[in-house]
Amino acid sequence: MRNFLSVNDVESVDSIVKEALELKKDRYRFSELGRNKTLLMIFFNSSLRTRLSTQKAAMNLGMNVIVLDVNAGMWKLETERGVIMDGDKTEHLLEAIPVMGCYCDVIGVRSFARFESKEDDYNEKILNQFVKYSGKPVISMEAATRHPLQTLADLITIEEYKDKPRPKVVMSWAPHPKALPQAVPNSFVEWMNRTDYEFVITHPHGYELSEEFVGNVRIEYDQDKALEGADFVYAKNWAAYADENYGKVISKDTSWTISTEKMALTNNAYFMHCLPVRRNMIVTDDVIESERSIVIPEAANREISAQIVLKKIIENL
Amino acid sequence: MRNFLSVNDVESVDSIVKEALELKKDRYRFSELGRNKTLLMIFFNSSLRTRLSTQKAAMNLGMNVIVLDVNAGMWKLETERGVIMDGDKTEHLLEAIPVMGCYCDVIGVRSFARFESKEDDYNEKILNQFVKYSGKPVISMEAATRHPLQTLADLITIEEYKDKPRPKVVMSWAPHPKALPQAVPNSFVEWMNRTDYEFVITHPHGYELSEEFVGNVRIEYDQDKALEGADFVYAKNWAAYADENYGKVISKDTSWTISTEKMALTNNAYFMHCLPVRRNMIVTDDVIESERSIVIPEAANREISAQIVLKKIIENL
Amino acid sequence: MRNFLSVNDVESVDSIVKEALELKKDRYRFSELGRNKTLLMIFFNSSLRTRLSTQKAAMNLGMNVIVLDVNAGMWKLETERGVIMDGDKTEHLLEAIPVMGCYCDVIGVRSFARFESKEDDYNEKILNQFVKYSGKPVISMEAATRHPLQTLADLITIEEYKDKPRPKVVMSWAPHPKALPQAVPNSFVEWMNRTDYEFVITHPHGYELSEEFVGNVRIEYDQDKALEGADFVYAKNWAAYADENYGKVISKDTSWTISTEKMALTNNAYFMHCLPVRRNMIVTDDVIESERSIVIPEAANREISAQIVLKKIIENL
Repeated sequence: MRNFLSVNDVESVDSIVKEALELKKDRYRFSELGRNKTLLMIFFNSSLRTRLSTQKAAMNLGMNVIVLDVNAGMWKLETERGVIMDGDKTEHLLEAIPVMGCYCDVIGVRSFARFESKEDDYNEKILNQFVKYSGKPVISMEAATRHPLQTLADLITIEEYKDKPRPKVVMSWAPHPKALPQAVPNSFVEWMNRTDYEFVITHPHGYELSEEFVGNVRIEYDQDKALEGADFVYAKNWAAYADENYGKVISKDTSWTISTEKMALTNNAYFMHCLPVRRNMIVTDDVIESERSIVIPEAANREISAQIVLKKIIENL
Repeated sequence: MRNFLSVNDVESVDSIVKEALELKKDRYRFSELGRNKTLLMIFFNSSLRTRLSTQKAAMNLGMNVIVLDVNAGMWKLETERGVIMDGDKTEHLLEAIPVMGCYCDVIGVRSFARFESKEDDYNEKILNQFVKYSGKPVISMEAATRHPLQTLADLITIEEYKDKPRPKVVMSWAPHPKALPQAVPNSFVEWMNRTDYEFVITHPHGYELSEEFVGNVRIEYDQDKALEGADFVYAKNWAAYADENYGKVISKDTSWTISTEKMALTNNAYFMHCLPVRRNMIVTDDVIESERSIVIPEAANREISAQIVLKKIIENL
Repeated sequence: MRNFLSVNDVESVDSIVKEALELKKDRYRFSELGRNKTLLMIFFNSSLRTRLSTQKAAMNLGMNVIVLDVNAGMWKLETERGVIMDGDKTEHLLEAIPVMGCYCDVIGVRSFARFESKEDDYNEKILNQFVKYSGKPVISMEAATRHPLQTLADLITIEEYKDKPRPKVVMSWAPHPKALPQAVPNSFVEWMNRTDYEFVITHPHGYELSEEFVGNVRIEYDQDKALEGADFVYAKNWAAYADENYGKVISKDTSWTISTEKMALTNNAYFMHCLPVRRNMIVTDDVIESERSIVIPEAANREISAQIVLKKIIENL
């Protein structure tokens, strides 16, 4: 594996999930593999799980880790070429990226959608500059349009908890007070399309995701109907994608909140969410604290997804 | 040792101080013990000594360390159950804590008294949620009511410097411009009660600490009288504890500042303070820079207290 | 080597550059040398290259690294003696420095000129307190008047790229919107005076550097004339040094920007800059992106300069 930016960097979803589950049995088995290899983690946005789990994963492999919070202990970066840099931005990304690449073997980058330009977001302007100019393998630690480390952890979790070969997985939109990127749902859909689970997406009208990701997946606008017989409920908020409302909150309809009543429609489904989650907006206290909530094991698998990806990348250096 | 939250987690104060002094002679002796063990340090408040000394201690044992500053590179955490999270708090502590626990073997937590609710502070609301929900051993890196790593370092220091079996130790309140928690004095008193030193507390009326901590310790309201014959002067400011003034500064009386004149009343006492210290409020320049000031060796022993605690915890994993 | 504060800590510039180039061939050769040695990096100012390259260098040697951003996760420090500390500064540098020294084997310090007092800046008030009070070897990670890790990397780079024994190196002032310290140009001049390169400084009238650093170096006020036959163009902005204008921007004359036309005057010179660089102020997009721009290899050599310095210091512990 050279980079890890999307499902397209994975030869087989089925295989990598199996390898991850195998690695999880003995996560210190390859603690010499990363000797004298350095992971540099660059955060343009805040992070809890990704920050901790990716560091832990790298250390499991014996790698060195350097964490850099852009906007903390560093200056602002110019991203446009041709600008006369006489303002508040001290350095250009075109210098900063190759420089960062100098001091490491692998770069992880977190850079969310900014909702300023749909084109810039969906072209992964920042992430792709790292790929192009850093000279090193790049791991997405959530970019504008995808969050593949999350999705891989999600799939590992479903494999661990499923009790039939082809469970029904329902991804449901749920309300949230602020505009959130589509990276997690896009990524989830993209990977689900490479599995043979039964997969349904449910959301209010106006919240359609990019067709590029959704493809032929069944969309059911009636949440109750979608939830029928579900084995896994994957809740997530996202802002509108359609051009005219791109990056906007067009509904905060709390009838979409995942409640005990909603879960009663399912086949005693497991509840999943990538976290952080707004309680009593996305999901009620009761559901997230229930026996069927697997949000913590799902988060714990972030260490495993990061570790299998790092392992494949450094094996290929 | 499972957790390290107070003196109650220590079998014998005398023994752990002796073990610490032994460890100090060769602090790299157990540098393989922490292999593939990760300490996660969570800071809800600022830190210099604790941040550096605890990292150093963990690395002496060969542990991996991850540092997380909540409020920097992370979002705000909700602490109340039942809230509809439609405001500025992105994640609930009830998810964040078990998630943090996923990626480490031991958690260190710094969370000061907030002085918003005496009950919340003295119930150690935040620290106890880490104990309850993280699934991992928890080390207090100063909580609302105690700072046991500091006190253990203080006791190691007294053992190193004392020149009689039963020295007289005087803990004196001293003025400070802002309201400070009672964690350091509470902890100092709690541990001193498990030693056989002669121990006296002196402070102005109205600065009485919790009886739960003080027990039968002699309180002397006349500072000069208290200092007579002292072998160690342990200076510290704290805000009022009594209900009606909880968390308030009720005196800035600089006649309580530890000066050369005050030290002249003692038995050529050593001067101690946990640092950071406000010069010419708590103590004069002359005293803190004198030959009898042992604030730096005291700070240096923070590495040793943290290391002996971490050693005992990881031996028990 | 005890400290690394200026060229005066180096026995021979020629030798250390040669040793650095040798080390670069196998940077993991001494990965056991730093075992149980800890580098503490203290940042009073922002950093990208220094932060990453120095960490990487220390890890190449097997050292542990602790990074401390003063002003982030720490309180403000008082620097004056005799002050009654009843304001917003929580700790005195006279305690903080020896405390920091307790928890490490080597201290790196970044502390820029503040342009508040020329005397304080040129006496290296902050850096010298670390030397005096930390009890540990100190590495300048850019102080008020010098940036020797940068200059050593610059010299390593020139040695790698020069194609004649005695290349002509031209250091040229260039415009910048804000007042920048003289540390980089001072240091560059100071080291160049210990080489036998042909060296010329060019800048507008009023931008004369300290004579203490410049000595007998040729100063050419006509930039075009200075650039004639140059093999290396080392661009840099700095604020005025002269007493009456100390720390001020007295020109933003963009006729001094290094452009393709300016480079055409040289002997097909390499373009160098320490970074971060303001594009289209200091240098045009075309020049910095040209084949002859070596700013990235120059930055990459920051790892090597830091590593050879750390190696010499820990060999001497």
